[in-house]
Amino acid sequence: MAESSGVATGVTVEHHMLADVVTRQLEAMLAVGNYDAVKMLLEPVQPVDIAEAIANLPTTLQAIAFRLLSKDEAISVYEYLGTTTQQSLLSKLRSSEVLEVVEEMSPDDRARLFEELPAKVVRQLLSELSPDERRVTSELLGFRAETAGRLMTTEFIDLKEDHLAQEALEIVRRRARDTETVYSLYVTDAERHLTGILSLRDLVTADPGTRIGDVMTADVLSVQTDTDQEKVARTIQRYDFLAVPVVDLEQRLVGIVTVDDVIDVIEQEATRDLYAAGAVQAGDEDDYFSSNLFTVARRRVVWLAVLVVASFFTSEVIAANEDVLQKVVLLAAFIPLLGGTGGNVGAQSSTVVIRGLSTQSISSLGSMKAVGREVMAGALLGILMMLLVVPFAWWRGESALVGISVGISLLAITTLAATAGAAFPLVFDRMGLDPALMSTPFITTCTDVAGTLIYLKTAEWLLTHLPQLQQAASISTQFLAASVF
Amino acid sequence: MAESSGVATGVTVEHHMLADVVTRQLEAMLAVGNYDAVKMLLEPVQPVDIAEAIANLPTTLQAIAFRLLSKDEAISVYEYLGTTTQQSLLSKLRSSEVLEVVEEMSPDDRARLFEELPAKVVRQLLSELSPDERRVTSELLGFRAETAGRLMTTEFIDLKEDHLAQEALEIVRRRARDTETVYSLYVTDAERHLTGILSLRDLVTADPGTRIGDVMTADVLSVQTDTDQEKVARTIQRYDFLAVPVVDLEQRLVGIVTVDDVIDVIEQEATRDLYAAGAVQAGDEDDYFSSNLFTVARRRVVWLAVLVVASFFTSEVIAANEDVLQKVVLLAAFIPLLGGTGGNVGAQSSTVVIRGLSTQSISSLGSMKAVGREVMAGALLGILMMLLVVPFAWWRGESALVGISVGISLLAITTLAATAGAAFPLVFDRMGLDPALMSTPFITTCTDVAGTLIYLKTAEWLLTHLPQLQQAASISTQFLAASVF
Repeated sequence: MAESSGVATGVTVEHHMLADVVTRQLEAMLAVGNYDAVKMLLEPVQPVDIAEAIANLPTTLQAIAFRLLSKDEAISVYEYLGTTTQQSLLSKLRSSEVLEVVEEMSPDDRARLFEELPAKVVRQLLSELSPDERRVTSELLGFRAETAGRLMTTEFIDLKEDHLAQEALEIVRRRARDTETVYSLYVTDAERHLTGILSLRDLVTADPGTRIGDVMTADVLSVQTDTDQEKVARTIQRYDFLAVPVVDLEQRLVGIVTVDDVIDVIEQEATRDLYAAGAVQAGDEDDYFSSNLFTVARRRVVWLAVLVVASFFTSEVIAANEDVLQKVVLLAAFIPLLGGTGGNVGAQSSTVVIRGLSTQSISSLGSMKAVGREVMAGALLGILMMLLVVPFAWWRGESALVGISVGISLLAITTLAATAGAAFPLVFDRMGLDPALMSTPFITTCTDVAGTLIYLKTAEWLLTHLPQLQQAASISTQFLAASVF
Repeated sequence: MAESSGVATGVTVEHHMLADVVTRQLEAMLAVGNYDAVKMLLEPVQPVDIAEAIANLPTTLQAIAFRLLSKDEAISVYEYLGTTTQQSLLSKLRSSEVLEVVEEMSPDDRARLFEELPAKVVRQLLSELSPDERRVTSELLGFRAETAGRLMTTEFIDLKEDHLAQEALEIVRRRARDTETVYSLYVTDAERHLTGILSLRDLVTADPGTRIGDVMTADVLSVQTDTDQEKVARTIQRYDFLAVPVVDLEQRLVGIVTVDDVIDVIEQEATRDLYAAGAVQAGDEDDYFSSNLFTVARRRVVWLAVLVVASFFTSEVIAANEDVLQKVVLLAAFIPLLGGTGGNVGAQSSTVVIRGLSTQSISSLGSMKAVGREVMAGALLGILMMLLVVPFAWWRGESALVGISVGISLLAITTLAATAGAAFPLVFDRMGLDPALMSTPFITTCTDVAGTLIYLKTAEWLLTHLPQLQQAASISTQFLAASVF
């Protein structure tokens, strides 16, 4: 979508409260058929706020409110609506109205809408579009989802090297209305190859008689149509661009991606990472709280089931070592503590590594060094935790055996957990998979199995080889209890 | 920082690889003293890439490389350096060079640097700045961290309503070089109150003789100097702005926040949420992988220790119910599974709620409804998991007692975990605290304690009141093993 000009009612930034108030007023006015009042009410409101207000209206009133908007405003508002509301509006408007909206939408927003519509409706709409818009839309729909090709708009201003600055400014003036941004201008040759770039700032400050070829910057940084959207976002973010040009395999300029779309990508990727860390499957859009309970359960049950089955292995390990537990029941009291601490250390490591991969701070350090750091951090944290846990386990477990078993396995578990937490996401990334997929709860559950096994085997070994540790309990317990607690 | 014009060597987007190559070439050239080659090498490279290359150089070579940059470029590069490298460079440059850099920096970047420097150095530098820059810097340093006042730049173009479009364009031309953005233009009255806004697009397309007051948009959306940076970011994101004006309590225009700074805020907030979910304390900057092992441990040990102490309660619960375990040791095999599943459900709920608060999708739904949804989701997921877990527990636990105890407590735990996971972040948010603070691992550990207690107490009750459940084991086990596995 194009940049907005900065208008809204008053100076408040409480967006949702604003939309609430507008919705209530709107509903009241529509109910009594006071359409002039509606027009006055909506006049100073931002399109995104109007869109939210309309989406919150009862469906019967949505089409009526939408028809009261001016044509230009209707297009902007429509682009801001969610796909569900977009579809329900389409079904309620006359087909001439539908065509008008669809024809005027930004190509990228139109492609996003078409993807959600039934194939039959899309074919119908495509056949009614003007030839130009039809070609552009089919082209955009041909690119894979989440690539630059799908994210880009084809509405940009291209100049030629031979244009003079004043001619170029004239072109900008003429095309300012129907283009996504006027602030980044692109220079192409006769075969539409991208040869340079200049900003409107450069153009405005240039002498009117200068050739564009002399003020433009050659050596342009661009992305390809199949570049992943996250990489596009990182490019714009890193270089503080307002837009980045998109070229095809022959270096021909085919579109641009603007900064406002990139913010949404960054947000979407962050949500995805966070959901993965929380074992929630991310949806296509950030619409968790508007989806129904069945969808919510579906997006969570698969991960939960996988983790439960993984827990079965921990149960197996404990059941298989029933004998040790039978001899020293209090050993059971520290299984959750060990599993939990291992899980937390693993979660910490995978969190920093996954985030480091997203923000690219790991690529400058190197994967092996990153894992090495985590292994050392895990061991260090294990030692620190031992200081806290061993005295407690010794005392509460009523024997040196429990204290020593807990201590040894704690160190092993934290080191192991940190290593796994750091290494798995990196291996996944190397294999071309999403590192966040190897999510925190999965590492947590794996650590649980290994930790429990180490713990019970250590205890068994100590019980067989140093049985006096169990007898030594009462004296040392009293000593420890007196000195530590 | 100001928008870049879009230049870089070639069309690659592999930023870090680029910086690596540049660093190696740079180091080789500096070692043999070939300074002309350095200048040629760096000529087409983006400031952010030069900054990364310099930061990766041995510290002895950093100042030499920095001195070879042109003055304008040196400023941009310096602004992109991390504060550690910025400080070490300051200590190696002559004081006249230092002053030149500091004087020319963007006020917002300068304020960020000064915050990290020792107070003595800041006083010294402030006294040497020009009066204008000194005033601006002191003013910015006076605002609280993470507010619009701290994020904004004071370099913007303000016009008067009586200016004609052509005069305004002349002003833009003249001031284009030393201002942060030329694309959003602000209109103020004699007392510097913000009365309107217009974009360079509006200005360029306007008739040269039009009054600015007639093309500008009144009713401007603005933020206050003390508005939280996350809210500023959401405003720009929601309305697709390139910049948002910042006003003081008297509605006087004092600065603007631009979209490039806002992207960094969104990224920083996402990192913070993610770190909180992974029990890692976020640092001031996203510099985890460049901090030393001691800092790493410090940022993780506090949370770990808190969680370990929380685990002590689980140990207590188990130790206190030693008798039940002594009678049916296999009950111990399912403690990790119950705690783990509760923890995972709690993590899922807190993840979606924390993210929903960040992206503001909860405010449109309402907190109570959000919690209600999670409670139902938790119960639904509990029932689904029972189908999987109860047969396994019955069979592996070798008695109906274990199967039924696991089933009942599983349902209780998932419902409880979902409720706590959703409610805690909302309560924190209501109290004005960061909802992400009530982090996932904390909810996980709390669920562990409650879950273990419910489980062992259920088993104890069943053992007392329905002892036949334990005897019923062998037959039902054989039946279940045959039918399910």
